[in-house]
Amino acid sequence: MMDKTAQIVVSSTKSVEDHVLEIITMMNQGTSEIEIKGYGREINKTVDIYNQLKDKLGEGIKLSETSIGSEVKDKKRISYLLLRITKAY
Amino acid sequence: MMDKTAQIVVSSTKSVEDHVLEIITMMNQGTSEIEIKGYGREINKTVDIYNQLKDKLGEGIKLSETSIGSEVKDKKRISYLLLRITKAY
Ligand SMILES: [Zn+2]
Repeated sequence: MMDKTAQIVVSSTKSVEDHVLEIITMMNQGTSEIEIKGYGREINKTVDIYNQLKDKLGEGIKLSETSIGSEVKDKKRISYLLLRITKAY
Repeated sequence: MMDKTAQIVVSSTKSVEDHVLEIITMMNQGTSEIEIKGYGREINKTVDIYNQLKDKLGEGIKLSETSIGSEVKDKKRISYLLLRITKAY
């Protein structure tokens, strides 16, 4: 079976808990690697999502990549944080 | 000469620009490695500081470590982002 990879963009309207549930559901359905990307004010939330996921899944996940940078959106430059989470087994 | 390392905690009251200036000053005074740590709402600002530093210093700095986690402060758990910046030469 091919491993599935997905990227989710952290939403300003969804809660941390909603995103955590969404990610766990994706993993249960066969996604082995998920990139979580948060822009601007959602960067905090991105870290909160990771911490809650880690609480729930413990050694079951690994933080395989962290990257930061910026992109131009609507003519404004905005910072982002990207976390790649991989199923550990 | 011993390399100097420093850690700064991102402040809710200082601007991104103030922190960037502070870090550049430290580097000019011989600090070769600086850890920038932002908690909670200051996590966004931590990424903004890095991006502005990178704009100003370009290849002169490297992001040598990124870590995320949480700590208990005033009986509440709070997420943090820690970036380690190293002078490239
Ligand atoms: Zn030295």
